Order: sequence, then structure tokens, then C-alpha cells
Amino acid sequence: MAPPSPRVVVNVDLNKKPWQQNKPLHNRWHPEIPPVAEVKAGEFFRVEMVDWTGGAVKDDDSAGDIKSIDLSTVHYLSGPINVVDEDGVAAKPGDLLAVEICNLGPLPGDEWGFTGSFDRENGGGFLTDHFPCATKAIWYFEGIYAYSPQIPGVRFPGLTHPGIIGTAPSKELLRIWNERERQLEESGPKSLTLCEVVHQRPLANLPTSTGCLLGNIEEGTLEWERISKEAARTIPGRENGGNCDIKNLSRGSKIYLPVFVEGANLSTGDMHFSQGDGEISFCGAIEMSGFLELKCEIIRNGMQEYLTPMGPTPLHVNPIFEIGPVEPRFSEWLVFEGISVDESGKQHYLDATVAYKRAILNAIDYLFKFGYSKEQVYLLLSCCPCEGRISGIVDSPNAVATLAIPTAIFDQDIRPKTRKVPAGPRILRKPDVLKSTYDGKHPVTKNPSFSSS
Amino acid sequence: MAPPSPRVVVNVDLNKKPWQQNKPLHNRWHPEIPPVAEVKAGEFFRVEMVDWTGGAVKDDDSAGDIKSIDLSTVHYLSGPINVVDEDGVAAKPGDLLAVEICNLGPLPGDEWGFTGSFDRENGGGFLTDHFPCATKAIWYFEGIYAYSPQIPGVRFPGLTHPGIIGTAPSKELLRIWNERERQLEESGPKSLTLCEVVHQRPLANLPTSTGCLLGNIEEGTLEWERISKEAARTIPGRENGGNCDIKNLSRGSKIYLPVFVEGANLSTGDMHFSQGDGEISFCGAIEMSGFLELKCEIIRNGMQEYLTPMGPTPLHVNPIFEIGPVEPRFSEWLVFEGISVDESGKQHYLDATVAYKRAILNAIDYLFKFGYSKEQVYLLLSCCPCEGRISGIVDSPNAVATLAIPTAIFDQDIRPKTRKVPAGPRILRKPDVLKSTYDGKHPVTKNPSFSSS
Amino acid sequence: MAPPSPRVVVNVDLNKKPWQQNKPLHNRWHPEIPPVAEVKAGEFFRVEMVDWTGGAVKDDDSAGDIKSIDLSTVHYLSGPINVVDEDGVAAKPGDLLAVEICNLGPLPGDEWGFTGSFDRENGGGFLTDHFPCATKAIWYFEGIYAYSPQIPGVRFPGLTHPGIIGTAPSKELLRIWNERERQLEESGPKSLTLCEVVHQRPLANLPTSTGCLLGNIEEGTLEWERISKEAARTIPGRENGGNCDIKNLSRGSKIYLPVFVEGANLSTGDMHFSQGDGEISFCGAIEMSGFLELKCEIIRNGMQEYLTPMGPTPLHVNPIFEIGPVEPRFSEWLVFEGISVDESGKQHYLDATVAYKRAILNAIDYLFKFGYSKEQVYLLLSCCPCEGRISGIVDSPNAVATLAIPTAIFDQDIRPKTRKVPAGPRILRKPDVLKSTYDGKHPVTKNPSFSSS
Amino acid sequence: MAPPSPRVVVNVDLNKKPWQQNKPLHNRWHPEIPPVAEVKAGEFFRVEMVDWTGGAVKDDDSAGDIKSIDLSTVHYLSGPINVVDEDGVAAKPGDLLAVEICNLGPLPGDEWGFTGSFDRENGGGFLTDHFPCATKAIWYFEGIYAYSPQIPGVRFPGLTHPGIIGTAPSKELLRIWNERERQLEESGPKSLTLCEVVHQRPLANLPTSTGCLLGNIEEGTLEWERISKEAARTIPGRENGGNCDIKNLSRGSKIYLPVFVEGANLSTGDMHFSQGDGEISFCGAIEMSGFLELKCEIIRNGMQEYLTPMGPTPLHVNPIFEIGPVEPRFSEWLVFEGISVDESGKQHYLDATVAYKRAILNAIDYLFKFGYSKEQVYLLLSCCPCEGRISGIVDSPNAVATLAIPTAIFDQDIRPKTRKVPAGPRILRKPDVLKSTYDGKHPVTKNPSFSSS
Repeated sequence: MAPPSPRVVVNVDLNKKPWQQNKPLHNRWHPEIPPVAEVKAGEFFRVEMVDWTGGAVKDDDSAGDIKSIDLSTVHYLSGPINVVDEDGVAAKPGDLLAVEICNLGPLPGDEWGFTGSFDRENGGGFLTDHFPCATKAIWYFEGIYAYSPQIPGVRFPGLTHPGIIGTAPSKELLRIWNERERQLEESGPKSLTLCEVVHQRPLANLPTSTGCLLGNIEEGTLEWERISKEAARTIPGRENGGNCDIKNLSRGSKIYLPVFVEGANLSTGDMHFSQGDGEISFCGAIEMSGFLELKCEIIRNGMQEYLTPMGPTPLHVNPIFEIGPVEPRFSEWLVFEGISVDESGKQHYLDATVAYKRAILNAIDYLFKFGYSKEQVYLLLSCCPCEGRISGIVDSPNAVATLAIPTAIFDQDIRPKTRKVPAGPRILRKPDVLKSTYDGKHPVTKNPSFSSS
Repeated sequence: MAPPSPRVVVNVDLNKKPWQQNKPLHNRWHPEIPPVAEVKAGEFFRVEMVDWTGGAVKDDDSAGDIKSIDLSTVHYLSGPINVVDEDGVAAKPGDLLAVEICNLGPLPGDEWGFTGSFDRENGGGFLTDHFPCATKAIWYFEGIYAYSPQIPGVRFPGLTHPGIIGTAPSKELLRIWNERERQLEESGPKSLTLCEVVHQRPLANLPTSTGCLLGNIEEGTLEWERISKEAARTIPGRENGGNCDIKNLSRGSKIYLPVFVEGANLSTGDMHFSQGDGEISFCGAIEMSGFLELKCEIIRNGMQEYLTPMGPTPLHVNPIFEIGPVEPRFSEWLVFEGISVDESGKQHYLDATVAYKRAILNAIDYLFKFGYSKEQVYLLLSCCPCEGRISGIVDSPNAVATLAIPTAIFDQDIRPKTRKVPAGPRILRKPDVLKSTYDGKHPVTKNPSFSSS
Repeated sequence: MAPPSPRVVVNVDLNKKPWQQNKPLHNRWHPEIPPVAEVKAGEFFRVEMVDWTGGAVKDDDSAGDIKSIDLSTVHYLSGPINVVDEDGVAAKPGDLLAVEICNLGPLPGDEWGFTGSFDRENGGGFLTDHFPCATKAIWYFEGIYAYSPQIPGVRFPGLTHPGIIGTAPSKELLRIWNERERQLEESGPKSLTLCEVVHQRPLANLPTSTGCLLGNIEEGTLEWERISKEAARTIPGRENGGNCDIKNLSRGSKIYLPVFVEGANLSTGDMHFSQGDGEISFCGAIEMSGFLELKCEIIRNGMQEYLTPMGPTPLHVNPIFEIGPVEPRFSEWLVFEGISVDESGKQHYLDATVAYKRAILNAIDYLFKFGYSKEQVYLLLSCCPCEGRISGIVDSPNAVATLAIPTAIFDQDIRPKTRKVPAGPRILRKPDVLKSTYDGKHPVTKNPSFSSS
Repeated sequence: MAPPSPRVVVNVDLNKKPWQQNKPLHNRWHPEIPPVAEVKAGEFFRVEMVDWTGGAVKDDDSAGDIKSIDLSTVHYLSGPINVVDEDGVAAKPGDLLAVEICNLGPLPGDEWGFTGSFDRENGGGFLTDHFPCATKAIWYFEGIYAYSPQIPGVRFPGLTHPGIIGTAPSKELLRIWNERERQLEESGPKSLTLCEVVHQRPLANLPTSTGCLLGNIEEGTLEWERISKEAARTIPGRENGGNCDIKNLSRGSKIYLPVFVEGANLSTGDMHFSQGDGEISFCGAIEMSGFLELKCEIIRNGMQEYLTPMGPTPLHVNPIFEIGPVEPRFSEWLVFEGISVDESGKQHYLDATVAYKRAILNAIDYLFKFGYSKEQVYLLLSCCPCEGRISGIVDSPNAVATLAIPTAIFDQDIRPKTRKVPAGPRILRKPDVLKSTYDGKHPVTKNPSFSSS
């Protein structure tokens, strides 16, 4: 009878560097990066991937690797994969590619991951003005669960997902990306109100030859030189999906990706064992190598049938998806609110980003009272299955955002009690996240009302 | 044995105007609005409320009342309620007031509600640049379910909640509010990037005597004149809770509110039968009159014990809450993504508000294909139990927001299928939301890529 | 526009006796009990009901009323209700009646209930050989929650449902019932293996004029005399639905009832605030008066279309139903197993009843260790939202049944811990259920292995 | 840093027979079967297992292997495993062994399973009087999902679990087992009422040397001869856990097993990809080979601390367990009821087994109307994630059992609709389960009311 096992279309060897893999990886989006494999609609296949840094971060007791990371080289992606229908006819621009995530997980022998925050001078994170140092926590996997020596007192099941899954952009879409991101960068932080809040982080990451890896296109060739200057960085999610970092894209999910080039050229990478909504510390999920088991369907002409472009061109679309049936269940949540007033007391106008920042700051200081360091909570809220909601977006001038944390991930009861925070269950063991110094010149935001007494 | 029924501490008569009620209502936040009732910690009590407009919107076939609404008079709140402990000692500034919502629902004989979007010149909504007209849909309740003659083909269980619940601000907190909101208004739309997106909506709503209602303080007195000029409007959620519009504050929830004045002075109003995250059309929940059944506990000194101020003063805090156990369960969701690129194609920097706007626009145009008008979807996504998430907030320059819609609320299968949108299940009945003309001068955003063919 | 409130078709006055109600009640199943009301398909209507004993059990501090209860008078039902379609044509035998439970709850001013176990000589319960005394616990409702002065340390949200909802039997079906139940009674306990386990309980409850109430048929008339001798007792669930005691028939459920007589003659009663699977102590749910808000649809010829009779006649069918969307959510459960070996060590053959009894006994003794009396746990497991499953029914000779208890209903952590049961969180307050003496002659089962040290 | 991968303590080679494995398997329970491995408390380890028949059933197009299966050889178990604490001290009789299932799944390259019903003369199943033939369906796994060529139109996520996990019995416990099961067999079917319903199935499976496999104890030795005559069969679940077939013992579950012998001697086997409550067709789960990843804790003296024996000796206990957090979520269920009246119309007394049989028969005939064969539904309800509940167990004379089926597993809408079963979505493809002839002499139950027209 039929062979049930998935066919491995991209495998990786974790003892090799990203640029040494059998099926060469890539770290840019470009229509001309050639496919490394082909799958048929309906076929059950497997794709392996390195972690997003390609092994640059180690399971050791230093945050030095996080501090000195070269962000021009990320994310290392597996693919592109050419998708054809049952008759062998390739997916066409205008089709929708329905990708079902049948299964995923870590690679055997590599059951660990890391969460970090970057140095403020090198990438930063959502709260980089509060937490300018590079930090790192290691997570070990015990089947569905993860625990960290650096963040004791919590253990939670993973809602594992690929941070990045997307199709290749067409030339026209790539041009649109590069132009709008260049305009942002050129207009500079002065034009933005948000920069007062999440300041001094890179505004955009424009194409650069530095660190560029283009799969089967050999470095140093004329083609490589040209493409490396055009190819979009993988940091932001865009019309093709890409780095959406949607924590619910887990087992059983089905993603409908627009097709922009012949064959779709599906790529994926940046596996996360678990992530909180927002992935706030930037390197904030539990980052890991891993595998995906997938099935594709082609919905012919599906972009026109199901997606409406919302912008100046027919290419301004976004993927849609269905959530899978096996997400971890939690029935008790403690919820923190934030409004769009920043730490200096300044009022912002319906700004969900500021409101969400405030909700997170409230949560960090709350959990600090239960025996955690603030760095521990910052990383924890980046990677645990917490939910970030836009609750109110119309009540001028305040946006209201909420952050809901499942109480079951803690080994103590973190709910408020009559009178005092219970002294008993506080964490008595005192490890902390691995931390590097911050040597930069940017100012750091302190909470003027906080006293650690 | 003990009397189990809740004691009614505020009742309303729907045949009377807000200013004629037995226990006078108020529509401003101010420390000097006198309590109308007192409850003991542990006591089980009931509070009734009018709808947020105090009956200005009718169950009829015109959107004229929505168009001409006087927003200076909203929201009509029940209270303030003075809270004392078992020994009769009042809650004190610095305490936390834990309020459990034991039950809530419509008032007998008034089992209906409305959802609307305001005229762009009079309040607008999140998508007012796309939908400048005042619109209205009526919803009828059949127990846990609501349905609308204007939006056929959907029916869903309510996740009913009070849009507003909060404590009175102290004088100092009130001063902080008024100052920061005045500064926003004075600096004007030019200073904001967001105004390009949600433009021409009021930046803030500063204190005004017009339409002011102050409970037991009689209009025309010197005291009324003074307070009406200081008292904060109820539109935005703030440090005291207030108009947070958090759809999950439903049966079984427990809210921890900071106490700023002696007795806490708890007020509540703006009941919603159901609301989607964001309440996007502004009058976007299913607005209703109703009742709350509550229990309060006082956590002495709880603000210092459990909340950390995050701002320049010890008053810069936010409430926290626990979610109740009887929310409607949905296991299948269709999810729309948005990134922080606006309809003109412009790139915004990590702006969750823009990303959420985009996700909603994507959803509206998608559901339009299934036989709804866009106005129907706009109102539906304002009031159905959809979830708005901040999925990615660190991947410069794109924030990623998602909007998840439970598929079970529709009487057709709205998931994408291979090839075409099924013609069969489309809505054949053709009612639409009640609509007024838009006579204003502001430009309207059109989707340049859309064709209705 | 349309009137949304439900039309009240049966109301009750709790100050009156069951036989004094405006719309007369009945406590038997018979095709000739005349309808007291009529509803149209699609109409939203309300039915009120007394508690199953019609007020015989009081909110007081004695179990005497439970001990001396006259079981010939229960259950008092509201109805019958005649159902017609939109054109006024009555439901016909062979149709299916789809009844949607839109809402339900206690009657205002009567927000309390009771749970009891009967004296072994007067009805008994599932564990009557272990617990022969009549006992009673009172529950007070705080909105969605119930708590009991007699069973401290627990509080849980209700999964409220009508214990009884059913259509009237036809004469032929009634004859089938009476005959098969008479045969069981005549063959006697000797013919049953189960009687060794749940011995000395009534085998069946045959028709009796004693205590009989027949709605509009006046007592003492010839018609009353005849019908009272034929009319089936309401204790067991049967082909018409009836006393199914299915705890999930709550808000939003839809029940498909077979129609056996013209107009369907829908009756309902025996409201439960909450019940555990099995309702083990017999008077085991939280019994209450209450209201139902319903909508009916008629599926013409639906019995043939959707139900297959499973037995000698076309009348041997059972209802089916769909579960509603707002059941309380629990994510953590402690589960007890039982196998079909009884307390004497005797092996039974694939007997799910014995296995479930064993699982419950295991749970009672487990929770006893946490500070409860065994009577408290017996009543608690009768009425809290615990789930009873038939896990294995084929592995000869043992059936395996499981009882899953949601841990969140307790105010202490009841999960096993390394080493000893924690002394700290045990219940220190010592109320117990109200208890009467057991004066009967039947032997009582003691657990030979138990020592209370 | 620490090694996160699980240590493999029992591995299997699917190319070898059960008796040829490196770590020898066993198929009996006996205290003297020697451990094949040792683990420490807290250690994360992996156990592999063959399917319960040790490869006797093939992925082919015949049910012949099911028909001719030799049930004296099942179930092949991996273990026993000796468990010691951190100091190397073995678990002791009287301790509790807490076993956490961190992960589980199929073995790579063997991602398929089978569901079958046995011939009535060779084991039968719960409905063997209706379905006397041996049947087989093959299931293929696509990650979390399974589908079957023999049962089209369904696909569902697995709630994978080990059918068997247990500790070794002590000599005394073994003696109790053998004696009570021998007594049942000797008293014969005449003594049982249930045998009228599930007749001609084996009453018990007593020890037999035939087919016996005892791990490291070599066949033919004196020791083997003795033990093989004493060792308990693995078919029923018992005090040591064993073949409980509890479908919720999946990822993240924690089982508390009593310890009867030094070292606990943990064994496990009989992996199920998915199973319905009851596993009704006997070989009814999706049977597979697979792996478990486990962690053990020893709760010293935990049997006395947490378990109360319920029977004549201190050994009459049962395991307890906690359910894991990642079970598949379904929000819509269609529920079938059954009462304790059998197909002949005979009334049984509070017999949950009969009631459950009736609920299943109702479900089978219902789904038959949607285009399935009855054999397809019989196997489907054995293996899909349906829930079997004991809803009412006190309302003499009827027990009420319910069977809840998640509607999302079907690719058509199986809920009742106004008027007729929709013709459109019926299954048009016509494969059926693989079937053997039934050549036995036992009578077959036909439904007298059924006509297939």
C-alpha cells in the first residue's frame, strides 16, 4: 500500500555551516534564487532547517555570542521549493498556495533552544530602552515541555511554529519593498513619533551584500553581485508571508500564501519552540533548529478569488490562515492592561504599540514582585504562550492593549491575594539570565516610580 | 438561612431620561461626584445601567439618531459606589479594589442592542476614512445569542461585559489626565504620523460643561460649574480603568482596580452584549442597557503590593484582571494578517495600529466576497467575538497584527476552498445596515486595487 | 420593530403548591394530559418551573425533609406545550422536534438549591450501601457561581440544565414502557448481578395513583382514575427524552426529540444548577426552580429521516443533541479510575456500572484525605461539573471507567505531591452536610481496608 | 551544559520478531520477569514499543490476519524498567510512581496503524453480536492527522496514548487476580445478565503457557514453565494500571501508579494513535508501534498517603492521573443517547454497559444515513476521539449513557437539518472496510426495525 512517511525534500546537517549544506540555504528574498527541490500538490513532505542564526548561538554560559551576532547573515532559510500540481504544472503568479503544517518539532539530538535580547547598539528589542544589554537564556525540551536553568519556576508546553514561511516575491513586489523601506530610512527617526518610544533601533534593514547567502547562486559571480544588492532582507514579514512570527502557526494550521513567481518558491526557517505574541525581545522566541512536515494544495487563481489587494497595486495582499486543533489549553489567565501613555507620562494618540509596551512593562514589574529579575520576565514574556491583544483602538486618545499570561506555567500562584504578595512561594533559587555589559552611549529608560525595596 | 439574591444598589427606569433617574447618573470622572450607594466587602450586589447613550438610539429603521448624536453627553454611568470593609471602614487611596463580575445581562423587557459607526464629522471610527457615513444595525437577543435583521447569516453567543468600570480619580490624577490630553490636542495632528491613517478624528475630548451630568450635584450651582470644567470625559480608558472596552471582562472575571479616593467610588456603565477586539467602528459593540451582579474585596495597600507605577508619579498604574471560566468556546478560526504598510503603500515603523487596520481591511474585503456589504462586515467585526492580536512587534519595520474570526458564527463555510468562492452559500437575502449620507468635506480612502466585478 | 423578549407560556408562583399553579403541573407521562400552552416554530418563549419536589425541600438546617420525602409525587413538570409550525399545523408523530435552549437560570428571588442523598429505605442513591443516611447540602448562587455552607472550600460555575425535557409518549409507547418495567420488577433482584452492588434500591417505579398530578385533568374524575393507573412515572429517562439528567444540556444546546403525539406535548422540569455525570446521590444535582428560554423547530418526518429505531418497534428510538458553546472551561483535571471489581473483591464482567462505582469510591477516599467528610465528597461529586467516562468496555473481564474532577473548583491544590498530603491547605473549618439517622435494616458496606488514622 | 535528548532505554527493531528484540519483550504480568533497564527519578528517557500484536497485522488489503490472530500472544510489552531515586535506591512497594508522558509518537518509517474487529469466535468486540466478521481498516498518519483509505470522508488529529502502562504485580496481587478471574470463568455466562447482551465473548483470559513471552526468562526452563502458568494475561486493566485504554493518557499526562515490587518494574506497550472512549471494536484504537518519552518521580509511601484501598486487601487500589494540556480542541459535538433497554426491548437495571451499547448503535445507524457502511462507522467510533459518558446512573431502572462525536472530523456537515438528510454531501466514493467471512455458529443480532431503503 501507500508510503505514509514524509519524503525529505530539504535535510540539514547541524555539524555543517549554513553555507556548507547539501541543499544550499539562503538568507534573502529574491525571485531569482533557484529552487532546491520540487513537491507535488497533495504530497506529504519534510523540510529541515537550521536555527535562524545558523548555529551562531551556543548552549553555553555566556551571552557574548548574542552580543556580537552579525545580523546581516540572518535568517537562514530552507528552500526555495518549487510546487507543481498533480499534473506537474507549476503554481502560477495569481494562485494561492495552501500549506498545511501536518507536524513539526526539533531535530533528534538537538532538543534545546535559546531566547535572547540584543545589545541596544546591535538590533535591540521592543524594550531596548529599558533593557539595553544582550542577554541569553537556554531552554531544554522534555517532549512537549521546555524549561530553562536561567529562568527557574516555569515550565510550559510549546506552541511550536516556523517564524518564517513565505513565497518568493516577484521583481515588481521586490521593487516595491525596497522603495518603501528606503523611504522610511531616509525620512529618519525625526519623522516618527514612535521613535521616542522605541528609539535608536534600526528603522529598516535594506539590501546588503554583506552576509548574503543565495542558495545555489555562487558568491562572487556577477549574478550574485547583482542579486545580493537587490534581495530583500528577511527581518520583516511582508506580502509574501515571511517573518510573520505568528505564534499560532502550529500543528494543523493551514496557511494560504499568495504566489508571485512560477512554482511559488516556498521557503521556510526560523523555527520557534514557543513564542509570546509580539516576540518582544526580538530574539525572543525559543529559537531552535527543527523540521516541518507539510502538504501543499494549489488554488488556481486564488489571489483574485480570495484575496483583495489593499493598496496601490494588485500585489498589496497578505496571507490568511486557519488555526490548528492542538494548541495547548489554558483556562486561567492573568491580564495586564496598557494605555497609550508612555513612561514619561506623555499622551500618544491611539497608539497600540505604545499601549502594548505599557502592558508589558506593567507585567514585568508585577512578576518581579514574585521573585524574578526583570530580565528573566522580559525573556519569559517573549517566549511563553502569552497573548497580546488590541482591546480598544477607538477611544481617543487612548488605545488599550492587554497582555494575558496563562497562570499554569508558573510553579507558584501568581494571582493577587488579599493583602501581601505571599513570601512563601517566591523563588528562592537565584539563577538569572546570562548577561553582557552594555557599552553603548544611548540613554536608558528608568522607571522613576520604581523602588526595589 | 442567608439571603442569596443580590441587593440592588442602583436601579434604573428605562422610561426615564438619564437625568431623571432615582439614583442620579453621571457622565464624567471627578473625585467630588458624591456616592449614590454603599456596599460592604463580600456583599453580593446588583447595579443596573442605561445604555451608554442613555436611550438616544432607537430600535427603528433609520441611522439618523446615530448621525446626530451628541457625544458630549456620553457615557452615562451608574454610581459612584462607596466600598467599605466588613468593619465599615472605607477603602483608602493605595488599596486595590477586587471586583468580581458574578453575573450580568440585559434588563428584562429590553433584550436588544445596536451597533453603529459615527459620521466622520462627528466622532468617526477606526476606519472612518473608508466608511464616513453613520450606519446602524439592530441586534435582538435570544438568550445567549444575538442576531440582526441588518446583517443576516450570522448569529453568535455574547461575551457580555461592561465597557466601563472604574474608580474615581483623585484630584492629582485628574490634573495629570487633563494636562496630558490638552498637550496632545494642542500639538495637533501635524505632530503625529498616525493621523495620516486615522485622520480627522478628535485627538482628545477635553472637559466641557456641555452635556455634563454630575449625579447628585445639581446643574447650575457653583459647584457644578467648577467641577464640570475639570471633570474628565469618559471616552478613553485610563489609570482608573474606565472605558477599557476589554471584551473578556465577562462573567466570572475579577478586576483589580486601584483606589484613588476614600471609598473607591466605583462607577460602571456602557454594557456590551458582545464586542470584537478593538471595537473598531467606535459605537462598535452591541450596545445595551443591562445589569451587573458584583462582589468586592478590598486589598489593603494593594497598589504598592501588586501594582508598580510605570511613569513619573505613583499614580501611573493600570488595573489587572483575571478572565472568567464561561467564555464561548470556538475551535476553528480564520485569521487575517496585516503589516504596518498603509493603503497608499507607505511604510510605517512598527506601528501596530496601522497593522491592525490593514488586517481588518483584508478581512472586510474577504467577507465581501461571500455576499456581505462592506458596511455589514465593518459593523460585524466591531461586535462579533473576533480576536485582535499583536503578533510581531520587533521585526523592523513591520509590525504584524492578526484578526481571528470564529468560523462558527456564520451559517456558511467561509474558509477558502480549492478554486472559486462557492456561489451556492452566498447570502441571497439582501438587507443591509441602515445608512445615513455623508455630507462632510474630508476625503475618503478608496482601495485603488478593488473592483467589485 | 420586533419584540425581542421571550413570551412567557408557563409561569409559576413559588408561593403556591404545585397543584395550585395557574398553568397546572403534572408528574406523569401520558398522551392524554392536555396541553396548557401552544407555541409556534421559530417563536422565542419562556417556561418557568418549580424544583423537582415542588418545594418540599427547604433552605433550613435539617435533612428531615429529604428523609421523609414522598417520591410518588415527583417530578413536577411544566407543560405539556403544543407545538405548531409557521402555518399553525401541529407537529405530527414521526416528526422531530428541535428544541434550542437559548437561555436558562434561577427565578429572581429564589437563587438557591439543594443536593441530597435519600435514606436507603426511601429511594437511596448510587452508593446507598455506603451512605445509607439522608443528607442535605444547601447551595447559594452568586451569579454563575454556587457555594455551600455545608461543603466549604469549593465554589464552581454552574453548567445549568433541565434534568427533564421530553415529549409525551403515545399509547403504544406507554404500553411498552409499563410492560418492560413491570417485567423487571417481577423478575426481582435475584435475576440481576448488579443487585449485589446497588442492592435494595427500587427496581422500577411503576404507575401509581398515589401522589399523581395530571395537569388539567381533575383528581377524582373517572378520567383521572384511569390515566393515573397507566401514566408512566418520570424517574427514568426513556425514548421520549425525559429524565435524562445529561449535564451538558445547557445554554445553546439543541435537542432533537421524537414526536409521538399530535402537537408533540413538550414538558420540562427538574432544573439543575449543576450536576456531575451520573448524578450519583440521586437527589444529586443542585436542585432548583428556574426558567428556560426556548425556540422550537419542527423537522417533518424527521424520525424516519434521522433516527433509526433500535429495537422491536419503530418507537424504540432515543433523542440526539448538540452541545452549546458556553460550557465552563477547565484545563486541569484529576482523574480516578475504576475497574469492574467490587468492594468485596469480586470480579464482574465488563460492567461499566461497577467500574464507575469503584472510580467514585476511589475519588471519595482520596478527597477525604484533604479534609472533607466522605458525605461532603459524595454530595460534591454528585453536583460539581465532574465527567464520568466509559474508557474501556472490551478488555474482558474488566470495564474501565474514569471520573475526571476539575481541580480549579477547590481552593486548595488537590494534586498529589512528592511525599505527604500537605497539612497546610487542609480544611480547618468543620461544617458538614446535614444528616439524618439511618434506621433501616439493610446492611451497610464498609471498606475493610480503610482506617481513618 | 546538560544533555537534553532522552536516553533510549528500550529500543525495538521492527524488522525483528517480538522474541528476537535486543531488549526482550514480555506479554504477561508477573513479579519475576526481570527488568531490562533502569532509570533514575527525574531522568528523561525513551521507550520504544512494537504494536500490540508484534507485527502480526499487515498494511495490506485483507482482513485475514485479523481473523486468524492468536490472542494468546498479545500484548507485547516493553520493559520491565527498574526505577531508582536520585540516590540509587529503588522504588519500594507502597510507593507511588509518578510517570509523566513528555512526548510520544510513531517510529520513523512506520507511520501507519490499523483498526479492526475480531471474528466472533476469536475474541469478538463490544458489538460482536451485530458485527461478527473480522474487519480491518488501515490508517496513514500525516503528522498529527490520520486518514484511512477504507473510511473516506474523515480525517482527525490523534490523541495518541499508550493503551498499556503499568507496574508489576506482587505475588499476592497476582494471586488475587488469578483467583477472582478464575471464579468468574467457572461461574459461567449463566450467572451474568450482561451475557445476554455481549454474549459468547470470553469471560476472562486465564494464565496460559501458550504464546507466553517472559523477557529474559528463557522459554523451556523450569522457571519459565512455572511462571508462564502463573503470569496474568495483559488483556484487562487492573490495580497496576495495565491495559486501561484511557484515551486521554496523552502528551503531558501524569500517571500515579502504585508500586508492588522492588523497583516498580514499569512496563508499557499497545500504542494507540487515537481511540474512542470504550475502544468498542476491541482492536478498536488505531494500533501502532511507537515511542514514549517519560520522566518518573517516586513518591515515597505514596500508596498510603494518596490511595485508599477499596476492597478486602491493601492491594485493591487503582492508579490516578492528570490530563495533559495539548489535547485536540473541538467545540461542536453531536451527541447520541442510550438507555438500558436492549435491542430486544428488554429492560435492564441501571446498566451503563447496555446503555452505552445502545448509544453506539444509535450513532451507527445515524451515520449510516450519511453514506457510510455500518462497519465503517463501527470502526470509526472505536478509534476517533469520541467521548462516552455515564450521564445518569440513579434513575431506576434506566442508566443513561451518551456518546459525543466531534463534528469537525467529517468533511460533510452531519448535523440534522430541517427535513431530509442532504443528498449532496453524502459519500460518493465507495470503499469499505476490509472484511472476512463469519463462519461461526452463534446467532447474529439484527435490528428488527431497520430497513435500508
